[in-house]
Amino acid sequence: MSAGAGILETIARVRQEVCSLHAELTRYELVVWTAGNVSARVPGTDLMVIKPSGVAYQDLTPEQMIVTDLHGTPVRGTNVGAGGTVDWGNPPLSPSSDTAAHAYVYRHMPEVGGVVHTHSTYATAWAARGEAIPCVLTMMGDEFGGSIPVGPFALIGDDSIGHGIVETLKNSNSPAVLMQNHGPFTIGKDAKSAVKAAVMCEEVARTVHIARQLGDPLPIDQGHIDSLYARYQNVYGQ
Amino acid sequence: MSAGAGILETIARVRQEVCSLHAELTRYELVVWTAGNVSARVPGTDLMVIKPSGVAYQDLTPEQMIVTDLHGTPVRGTNVGAGGTVDWGNPPLSPSSDTAAHAYVYRHMPEVGGVVHTHSTYATAWAARGEAIPCVLTMMGDEFGGSIPVGPFALIGDDSIGHGIVETLKNSNSPAVLMQNHGPFTIGKDAKSAVKAAVMCEEVARTVHIARQLGDPLPIDQGHIDSLYARYQNVYGQ
Amino acid sequence: MSAGAGILETIARVRQEVCSLHAELTRYELVVWTAGNVSARVPGTDLMVIKPSGVAYQDLTPEQMIVTDLHGTPVRGTNVGAGGTVDWGNPPLSPSSDTAAHAYVYRHMPEVGGVVHTHSTYATAWAARGEAIPCVLTMMGDEFGGSIPVGPFALIGDDSIGHGIVETLKNSNSPAVLMQNHGPFTIGKDAKSAVKAAVMCEEVARTVHIARQLGDPLPIDQGHIDSLYARYQNVYGQ
Amino acid sequence: MSAGAGILETIARVRQEVCSLHAELTRYELVVWTAGNVSARVPGTDLMVIKPSGVAYQDLTPEQMIVTDLHGTPVRGTNVGAGGTVDWGNPPLSPSSDTAAHAYVYRHMPEVGGVVHTHSTYATAWAARGEAIPCVLTMMGDEFGGSIPVGPFALIGDDSIGHGIVETLKNSNSPAVLMQNHGPFTIGKDAKSAVKAAVMCEEVARTVHIARQLGDPLPIDQGHIDSLYARYQNVYGQ
Repeated sequence: MSAGAGILETIARVRQEVCSLHAELTRYELVVWTAGNVSARVPGTDLMVIKPSGVAYQDLTPEQMIVTDLHGTPVRGTNVGAGGTVDWGNPPLSPSSDTAAHAYVYRHMPEVGGVVHTHSTYATAWAARGEAIPCVLTMMGDEFGGSIPVGPFALIGDDSIGHGIVETLKNSNSPAVLMQNHGPFTIGKDAKSAVKAAVMCEEVARTVHIARQLGDPLPIDQGHIDSLYARYQNVYGQ
Repeated sequence: MSAGAGILETIARVRQEVCSLHAELTRYELVVWTAGNVSARVPGTDLMVIKPSGVAYQDLTPEQMIVTDLHGTPVRGTNVGAGGTVDWGNPPLSPSSDTAAHAYVYRHMPEVGGVVHTHSTYATAWAARGEAIPCVLTMMGDEFGGSIPVGPFALIGDDSIGHGIVETLKNSNSPAVLMQNHGPFTIGKDAKSAVKAAVMCEEVARTVHIARQLGDPLPIDQGHIDSLYARYQNVYGQ
Repeated sequence: MSAGAGILETIARVRQEVCSLHAELTRYELVVWTAGNVSARVPGTDLMVIKPSGVAYQDLTPEQMIVTDLHGTPVRGTNVGAGGTVDWGNPPLSPSSDTAAHAYVYRHMPEVGGVVHTHSTYATAWAARGEAIPCVLTMMGDEFGGSIPVGPFALIGDDSIGHGIVETLKNSNSPAVLMQNHGPFTIGKDAKSAVKAAVMCEEVARTVHIARQLGDPLPIDQGHIDSLYARYQNVYGQ
Repeated sequence: MSAGAGILETIARVRQEVCSLHAELTRYELVVWTAGNVSARVPGTDLMVIKPSGVAYQDLTPEQMIVTDLHGTPVRGTNVGAGGTVDWGNPPLSPSSDTAAHAYVYRHMPEVGGVVHTHSTYATAWAARGEAIPCVLTMMGDEFGGSIPVGPFALIGDDSIGHGIVETLKNSNSPAVLMQNHGPFTIGKDAKSAVKAAVMCEEVARTVHIARQLGDPLPIDQGHIDSLYARYQNVYGQ
């Protein structure tokens, strides 16, 4: 029984967190209509929680968040030993059409606890040109430790997008990848960190775009970028 | 009596829907002052419902929405057989000055249930140059199935605008047309779909504009666009 | 006494109107901090009502609106005949630092009932280059009847700004003038019309700017502009 | 006891002011996530009050504002003579990671009562190119008395940023400096003035950027700039 109660509480907490983090996507105007999604790994399990497909942000409730396995298949309960089962329910909704990409990331990057996908305007504009965002701001050094890389063009429907994300990010300090002609995916140790990376990705995409409109931004030495990144990852915040 | 009650309920529902959808135009900043409008066909009738002219969005109420025939003439009731009549009333307001264009679309495109017109900034900028928006984003493939086309320059006052909309859209996957020097009109199976098309039209107009400011976006193969469109139209959402 | 009551009611109404219209300037993001102002002529008098200087928009109350004569000098009452006087009070605040320009317009353009000044971003950018906004949108034809003209560079402190506004607008259909290196001033038959002109001026300044960033907007024939303007001024709205 | 009560009241008031001014940073969209901060000197002391590090703006409370000395070290109380002490408390939070820069400014510019740092988009874009914003708007003459200068590239961690701010501003009318590749810092006689300078800095950065996108803004004579600045600093507001 305690195992069952534990998993139910954990899933309720993750559903609440994933649901409420979508409000940050609208607060920072990273999404329109229903075109963006947040997911989180359920700690200590092979499960994840993700937004349902095509539901408006202002209508989302925690109970609507879908629990799936790490292949993106909805799961409504689990065995908890000695023949007992626990059922956390799932609403009669399909998970986000991007679920396969999120699931691929969780399967292949065990350190990742949260994934976010948006079509935020400036990041998507860099993605449309297939151009990495150069690290010309100290806040990029802090957050991204270098440039924000571009991932391959990939169609939805199989593991192409997930594979492109993982292959690009595993060679980079950056928690954000710009999937070509598509938009950004970001990762983090938890869902909140991935949302922060999505917010900061759009912020630096916009600022560097605007800087570039009237000339060439000044480069920052790689040694300085490394210093900024090392300090920020270790000492910023509480 | 049941026929009369049925049409009254239907008209009340459509008025409510058309009224409340205008809030999406302001939420996504597609309109300023009173410069945009939503209409819906009344299902099973030769009637449509549209915004009154020159009323501020924050002051709109469902009762102010005007019921017109499919030539844009206000109609305040109908015969329901056996000499009975039903009166749904109309406020003492003129319908939108764009009513003729909406009505023309309903007369000539029976599959259309909703029409939206805005002067949203980026879409109107493409319209001012008379330039179609190229399909360089996967979300454009999903929603528009190709580029967003330009319709002819047309003056208000007769069927020129409606004719330009219909002639342009009947050869396109796109539910949006950029009327030259004027702005976008969008269509959908219902008013909500037409509003979504208006929101997505501005979103892709802005993103492709920004991509183009610093170089050439990478093209997407037509075969990939066709795949995206086919999948999205069939399997997205609930 | 009835004369006194009449003028008190009129001034209270105009103060309310001028105060509340400032909310439209913030709603459409035409102003930051305290950098914009609305005024109205008091009908049937040689008085005007204007915003106090340097007060934040969210703190404005009707009682703070300053009544001045048409030279911009605060006036707190008037004789109403037979030795009687009426006192509408004025707060212990200075009127807007732009009061002299508003007052000059009321003295020299008797048909004007409202004046608005902002530093709205895109209109001010055209003003910084001293470049008129060309009429390449049907909504510009409707509202402005042609291009939006540029007025001279003028320093604050005497009648230079007011004179520049009047000399520029008297030769134009446009209710908006872009004062060089400074920003837009708009006029209307009443304060609400002048606010609408300020909103539309920024809207077309932005849209034409964005159109121009990627090429040349298509011109509209002058005959078509004249048609749009004539229709809109006569038949739009209720 | 009265000395103790006085300092407690003063610190409570300054904490309230510093806390609430952060809402202006979000109102004018100068900051995202937690990337900006306001501080104030505590009048009549060698103390300052600053935002805690990494706390979201919507969660800030006055009690969370950190009191530090003018080297940025948190201080939770002081002797008030005759062996008495007063304790205003400090939350268990670290001060902003930019505290050293704020503190350096207070130590070296005794006339400064408030400091603000943001990464506001357009100002940061000019900073990324290391380019001063030219004074081509009358509102820039009013507020900045000339161009907004660029400060050196400097890494966080010692007094480099503070030194760069002070060395740049002491030769300028401007209350704003664009630290290269980093973002703006602004100063004022109190925290509200420094916030106003941050708001106006972004506003002119944006407007001049947009003016420059389509050509060269017209220069303003230095004599006119001097007139604007002298008038505005002396007579604007109440």
